[in-house]
Amino acid sequence: MKKADIGLIGLAVMGENLVMNMESKGFTVAVYNRTVAKVDAFIAGRAAGKNIIGTHSLAELAENLEKPRKVMMMVKAGDAVDAMIEQLLPYLEEGDIIIDGGNSHFPDTIRRTAYVESKGLLYIGTGVSGGEEGALKGPSMMPGGSPAAWPFVKPIFQAICAHVEDGSACCDWVGENGAGHFVKMVHNGIEYGDMQLICEAYQLMRDLLGMTPDEMHEVFAEWNKGELDSYLVEITRDILAYKDEDGKPIVDKILDTAGQKGTGKWTGIAALDEGVPLTLIGESVFARCLSAMKDERVAASKVFTKKAPNFTGDKKAFIEDIRKALYASKIISYAQGYTLMRAAAKTYGWNLNYGGIALMWRGGCIIRSVFLGKIKEAFDANPALSNLLLDPYFQGVIETLTDSWRNVVAEAVKNGIPTPAFAAALSYFDGYTCEFLPANLLQAQRDYFGAHTYERLDHARGEFFHTNWTGHGGNTSASTYVV
Amino acid sequence: MKKADIGLIGLAVMGENLVMNMESKGFTVAVYNRTVAKVDAFIAGRAAGKNIIGTHSLAELAENLEKPRKVMMMVKAGDAVDAMIEQLLPYLEEGDIIIDGGNSHFPDTIRRTAYVESKGLLYIGTGVSGGEEGALKGPSMMPGGSPAAWPFVKPIFQAICAHVEDGSACCDWVGENGAGHFVKMVHNGIEYGDMQLICEAYQLMRDLLGMTPDEMHEVFAEWNKGELDSYLVEITRDILAYKDEDGKPIVDKILDTAGQKGTGKWTGIAALDEGVPLTLIGESVFARCLSAMKDERVAASKVFTKKAPNFTGDKKAFIEDIRKALYASKIISYAQGYTLMRAAAKTYGWNLNYGGIALMWRGGCIIRSVFLGKIKEAFDANPALSNLLLDPYFQGVIETLTDSWRNVVAEAVKNGIPTPAFAAALSYFDGYTCEFLPANLLQAQRDYFGAHTYERLDHARGEFFHTNWTGHGGNTSASTYVV
Repeated sequence: MKKADIGLIGLAVMGENLVMNMESKGFTVAVYNRTVAKVDAFIAGRAAGKNIIGTHSLAELAENLEKPRKVMMMVKAGDAVDAMIEQLLPYLEEGDIIIDGGNSHFPDTIRRTAYVESKGLLYIGTGVSGGEEGALKGPSMMPGGSPAAWPFVKPIFQAICAHVEDGSACCDWVGENGAGHFVKMVHNGIEYGDMQLICEAYQLMRDLLGMTPDEMHEVFAEWNKGELDSYLVEITRDILAYKDEDGKPIVDKILDTAGQKGTGKWTGIAALDEGVPLTLIGESVFARCLSAMKDERVAASKVFTKKAPNFTGDKKAFIEDIRKALYASKIISYAQGYTLMRAAAKTYGWNLNYGGIALMWRGGCIIRSVFLGKIKEAFDANPALSNLLLDPYFQGVIETLTDSWRNVVAEAVKNGIPTPAFAAALSYFDGYTCEFLPANLLQAQRDYFGAHTYERLDHARGEFFHTNWTGHGGNTSASTYVV
Repeated sequence: MKKADIGLIGLAVMGENLVMNMESKGFTVAVYNRTVAKVDAFIAGRAAGKNIIGTHSLAELAENLEKPRKVMMMVKAGDAVDAMIEQLLPYLEEGDIIIDGGNSHFPDTIRRTAYVESKGLLYIGTGVSGGEEGALKGPSMMPGGSPAAWPFVKPIFQAICAHVEDGSACCDWVGENGAGHFVKMVHNGIEYGDMQLICEAYQLMRDLLGMTPDEMHEVFAEWNKGELDSYLVEITRDILAYKDEDGKPIVDKILDTAGQKGTGKWTGIAALDEGVPLTLIGESVFARCLSAMKDERVAASKVFTKKAPNFTGDKKAFIEDIRKALYASKIISYAQGYTLMRAAAKTYGWNLNYGGIALMWRGGCIIRSVFLGKIKEAFDANPALSNLLLDPYFQGVIETLTDSWRNVVAEAVKNGIPTPAFAAALSYFDGYTCEFLPANLLQAQRDYFGAHTYERLDHARGEFFHTNWTGHGGNTSASTYVV
């Protein structure tokens, strides 16, 4: 029997769907699952009659693979990945490739790449986005790891991934060791941001404009035809129209508490580590945390007297303002996310292709959108672009949005509708475009209480000054002890 | 010769000042420094004629200490602390106490407490705040670690620390292992927030109202007499009045780029780890990051057309609005910080005394203020208070501030003045007091693309539902693979 082109371990829905996807593209796949009954059920079921080889041990799996062997793990991120690597190693040989397709934290992938390479093998950690349907029909894939592994894996990955209109694959080599999982993490953080922005637009329509789900359905349907055309706006449109068994909108019956514990949090931590202002995603993660405090919010809502929202303007014009606020905030979110990737690339020595990343996200994944095509153009035109806002296209777009954006945030603020992400995005824009921030006072404070010194506008950078503010402190600057 | 009550290692300014402070309160102190010339210089200089014993080795230091020995390290946080512990251990015996007075990260202190206890000794990690002057005249101290060590250290710490008007010490036992350093970290995070809030008030007066430093000096002088009476407002008042050699305000000459890399960042990460919305401190850390991008900001300020700020209202009334916005935002910041401490206490098994923490911060440290007296009262009255906003006093105060707060943020938003912390605080308030957030839509989205399931308003919590939104997806919920 022909040996398999690739092996896959872990037959949960994502794993199974990836196997079906690979097989449909002409690849033979060998599969293994710890609970081997799952292998038999799969082979007897969905895999029946396909070029899929069921195996009952890692030894059998390895025997059934063409060399260099390619083994893709679809197991739970964390210790299970390390354990599986250990179990696999005895059955593999020099030049074989281990692939982790789970949502691993990028520092783990950095560590594992070095470890597996130290054993003479190659490693790939790849982000896979698109959910179960994406896995089956074409996910966005973001592989990083050992560069030497890529040529062997590329034909398979670029066959099974999503493709955009012109046929370009939504999968390309991201960079060394943890680069693929880092980019996938930022993707997920941006997904948090996109979802929060849609939620804020929805709440403004619901609570300030008093619109029904059907009315909002119409708005999102309209938005999905223009600049905001995207998967998340599309499903929001459909969700708002969906009726429960009693014929009433189901969205009104869903509890407003969202979970978070994963990659959004990691993205925020990475931004803090890199010193990159990632305010919109940060607020989006925290907004989920706040939503989870349902009982406390209900109690607090009864304790505080809040005026009912009162909108007196032109409703239709304000809906257009909300659309523009959402679009502007979305540009900020991606600008911040790209800045984070650029900082991390410097820290970890990755040579990231920013236009290529936009293309990988352009199709297949949860944040896929027309908008990402514009981002690709911006970074293709200027790969060294330090901030998306400085791209001429986006700079021009933002200028057309600011009045509406300011109007929406001001109305929200006056009417007590929380818009943490819209407002954070606007503060970032106003800070980023501000020549003289108030940090001069902050530096004076730090020098006052901690002798931390400051630089001056009328002297070269790198010259540090200390003022003896009180007359009775010392004239020397601070020791290494930092308050 | 009488043996010393305590030993201190590390004669940088903070260390020296703590020694002078201890000696002035009647304690004999033995000192050691890796560069022993520093010991000799200190003994010949500031320590001359005092009850301070210079030592040239750790062996000599240990010999000169009363048992159980108490050795306080004032060395740079990080590996140097671990190295010093290793070097010290051979000279210490069961029941001796090692104290770390640096800005260590609390997970390190958790680890070190367990390690030192495993050797039969006791460990204390203590936050020390107040800068160099505080170290000399009375810092705020936040000790945690081995509870059995506290009775031996308490007389010294409570003698040298700051004291409030009624004589209460700004130092008390915080909790086990890393609790002291955790509370110090949150203190520093709150310090970031307090400074950012003052900076936003300053920028509004400077850039929206066009006020001079002298005029703003008057405002801060006035504010320092009321609810905002605090060390940071006081030094801001003085900084604004300070003239350079040419007679012009020095604050106008200081470069507006602030540093961050330390405890503010850690606080943000801890909040993400605990899932506690700590938005104001988060924005404050990110605001420093943004300030550091000076060259990019200058470039961006020239690319974008921004209308000049235009304030047409009553200037004096607006200054009072700013004061109220600052006060309201400050209440939010502390409410968030206390929520974080409560969450961490649960995670790490600490039994924190929240009123006691407010008292420790009430004097000696950078965030000392009259306001903290009110926080102490709130938590003394109800130690189980889940959020400071629910305390009747602060709830009543907030109600008097919201109109002004909304007005300030709306004006800032319209005029392009960045107020990330004011706005984040207001969004938090509006979210916290919102019974029905838009996270119902977010849960629908997650269920749509990832079959993550949701709860319903009309069913009990803990019952999870999945909708087959598209008609062609599965009816089963997601596997462990989380997008």
